[in-house]
Amino acid sequence: MSLPGPIDPPARLLMGPGPITAHPRVLQAMSAQLVGQYDPFMTDAMGEVMGLYRRVFDTANEHTLLIDSTARGAIEAALVSLLEPGDRVLVPVMGRFGHLLVEIAERCGAEVHTVTAPWGEVVPLEAIAAAMEAARPKVLAMVHGDTSTTMRQPFDGLRELCDRFDCLLYADVTATLGGNPFPTDAWGVDAATAGLQKCLGGPSGSAPATFSPRAVKAIESRRSIEAGIREPGDPATAHPIRSNYFDLAMIFDYWSPRRLNHHTEATTMLYGARECARVILEEGLGAYQARHDLHGRAMLTGVEGLGLAVYGDREHRMANIVAVEIPDGIDGEAVRGALLRDFGIEIGTSFGPLAGRVWRIGTMGWNARTDAVLATLAALEAVLRRHGASVAPGGGVDAAYDVYGTAA
Amino acid sequence: MSLPGPIDPPARLLMGPGPITAHPRVLQAMSAQLVGQYDPFMTDAMGEVMGLYRRVFDTANEHTLLIDSTARGAIEAALVSLLEPGDRVLVPVMGRFGHLLVEIAERCGAEVHTVTAPWGEVVPLEAIAAAMEAARPKVLAMVHGDTSTTMRQPFDGLRELCDRFDCLLYADVTATLGGNPFPTDAWGVDAATAGLQKCLGGPSGSAPATFSPRAVKAIESRRSIEAGIREPGDPATAHPIRSNYFDLAMIFDYWSPRRLNHHTEATTMLYGARECARVILEEGLGAYQARHDLHGRAMLTGVEGLGLAVYGDREHRMANIVAVEIPDGIDGEAVRGALLRDFGIEIGTSFGPLAGRVWRIGTMGWNARTDAVLATLAALEAVLRRHGASVAPGGGVDAAYDVYGTAA
Repeated sequence: MSLPGPIDPPARLLMGPGPITAHPRVLQAMSAQLVGQYDPFMTDAMGEVMGLYRRVFDTANEHTLLIDSTARGAIEAALVSLLEPGDRVLVPVMGRFGHLLVEIAERCGAEVHTVTAPWGEVVPLEAIAAAMEAARPKVLAMVHGDTSTTMRQPFDGLRELCDRFDCLLYADVTATLGGNPFPTDAWGVDAATAGLQKCLGGPSGSAPATFSPRAVKAIESRRSIEAGIREPGDPATAHPIRSNYFDLAMIFDYWSPRRLNHHTEATTMLYGARECARVILEEGLGAYQARHDLHGRAMLTGVEGLGLAVYGDREHRMANIVAVEIPDGIDGEAVRGALLRDFGIEIGTSFGPLAGRVWRIGTMGWNARTDAVLATLAALEAVLRRHGASVAPGGGVDAAYDVYGTAA
Repeated sequence: MSLPGPIDPPARLLMGPGPITAHPRVLQAMSAQLVGQYDPFMTDAMGEVMGLYRRVFDTANEHTLLIDSTARGAIEAALVSLLEPGDRVLVPVMGRFGHLLVEIAERCGAEVHTVTAPWGEVVPLEAIAAAMEAARPKVLAMVHGDTSTTMRQPFDGLRELCDRFDCLLYADVTATLGGNPFPTDAWGVDAATAGLQKCLGGPSGSAPATFSPRAVKAIESRRSIEAGIREPGDPATAHPIRSNYFDLAMIFDYWSPRRLNHHTEATTMLYGARECARVILEEGLGAYQARHDLHGRAMLTGVEGLGLAVYGDREHRMANIVAVEIPDGIDGEAVRGALLRDFGIEIGTSFGPLAGRVWRIGTMGWNARTDAVLATLAALEAVLRRHGASVAPGGGVDAAYDVYGTAA
């Protein structure tokens, strides 16, 4: 029977909501050979990763590490480890990924309360405060940036609110970390989880996460030790975490000097995560975020220069993605298809209420670059024109050049 | 603040119970650039991976795919998707990884029954039959090869037993798939999960898995669709799977032509998993397994040639790992440390009742090779001698050469 050939992907510029084109240095790091999981080189590398991601998360949290799953798995790890069945959780919902937090929390057996904003807006602090007052949750679980709507939820005032109600603050920063300011400690966030495939510039499959001492205390009160490696005197627990794989108390032990065996760390993904952080911190976290802000503005201004309308509340947009309204009479999927087929450029489609209404164009990680922005705008102009749209010749590229302050 | 340098692992020959040295072709494939998750190239690659792993699992199961986690996560995906709270499951336990199945099944809320063999033995079919009769489980969950003891559980008669009690048969083949015969369909296995980091010759972080139509039916009866992407008319379920990330009904949809969004596939791991299968199937599954058998026998005969005793029931050992009793008066960890430090060779330590009693030496994946076996035996001889053990000069290497039938 015949076999498919060696992997040989076509040239692509991934300008959607993620995954985006990985930084070549990250892929190169991932081709390094494995070592054993308790090799001193490996445990040193794990320690380095903890230190690097403390800087990316802007935190002093000891418990800063990788979850061996995609970003979605890390959300589940945080919620299943924090929430016991019957615990109350409040989820402000402003798009698809708020619904995902609801869904995961429900499966944890939690009593889930929501406070909802219309798509394209964020949830006002006052609405969250009122919902906190009513629900008295153990955890406030927030999406920081929801790529489904491109909205970025402000965190001002959330810590004070959580302190008032003795509540833990969890943030899903999958789509924002690295490309938008997220000072974990300054904002008083107790738990935050991300993924490599957005602003961090790597492939999906490893999820950086950080946990405050307050979160760690809540999680460790539920500690279990597996029967196969339990020793006499090790404690049992009355409130075991419902998942073994996502049992953060066990994962903390694995990443601690105790190195108690849990899963087998995904070494290649760890090498990749390590290089993502090195790329970011070599540039400097502030400069890296500023670069996302610059190229995000250039893309937004560029699509407006093409005569297209930008969707959603302008005051609260994520730096790294813009939702663009599909002009009347244009088949959005046909335009996306032509961009991919003829220009090798991918932009994003949409979900739910926005399906068929907007494209989502990302500028993140390695692709937050002038050439990527200009090439996307030029290609979009060309394809729109061939699909019969009326677009200003050079309008997108010129507007982006203006943002960059570049002379002709 | 200074940054750690580029990743630069030391030279290592990983001859423990896994992870083992990855095949260089696999690491090379993993440096290929990403494409979007619904790019035709990506969906084609997912289809290729399904086809390749059907051949590795020796099955016609349509639902053959990757779980985006380490092997442990895939065990949880299978059990949490098959077992509802209160369901009965029978777990034959012959080592640490049987305990792990118990632990995961307990966290699923299942009523867990066990039948236990002493470490170093397998569980007799009659004992399993008696326990089935008593427990009447919905699922019989077995470890095929338990690296903690090196025992390989026979599967003869299990399908008939399961048919008699209308029971699903799950197998954890993490440590055996590829290196030991495991004809999924011929043995009537309903669900089996593996990991790349043992005989498949890749890094940890992706878990090939296969599910029979019977297993799929049980799982799909529990189907949910996420609120954020649910459409009018989509069904709700009375028995939701407790995990979102490991909800196999959702994962099946993601891998089906419907491509309903779930996690973001870990593309780089998928490239790696694809290349692992290509390496295996180029050699031929039978030849690949025979190679594991040959080099496993050479290692076993070699350690005996050094005057060391092999642990466990000889009739039921895994092809790809041998447990070697640490001679009296020898500090096992000091020997392991010297092998790693001075020869760059890693062999394994042990857990639980075998801690300090045996080393575990693997010959799997890329490392099931003559030079890897001979180098390990020569190094072990040298280190043992320097630690004061009495070993036959050249006894290990000569015995292995005899197995290979190589003249001097």
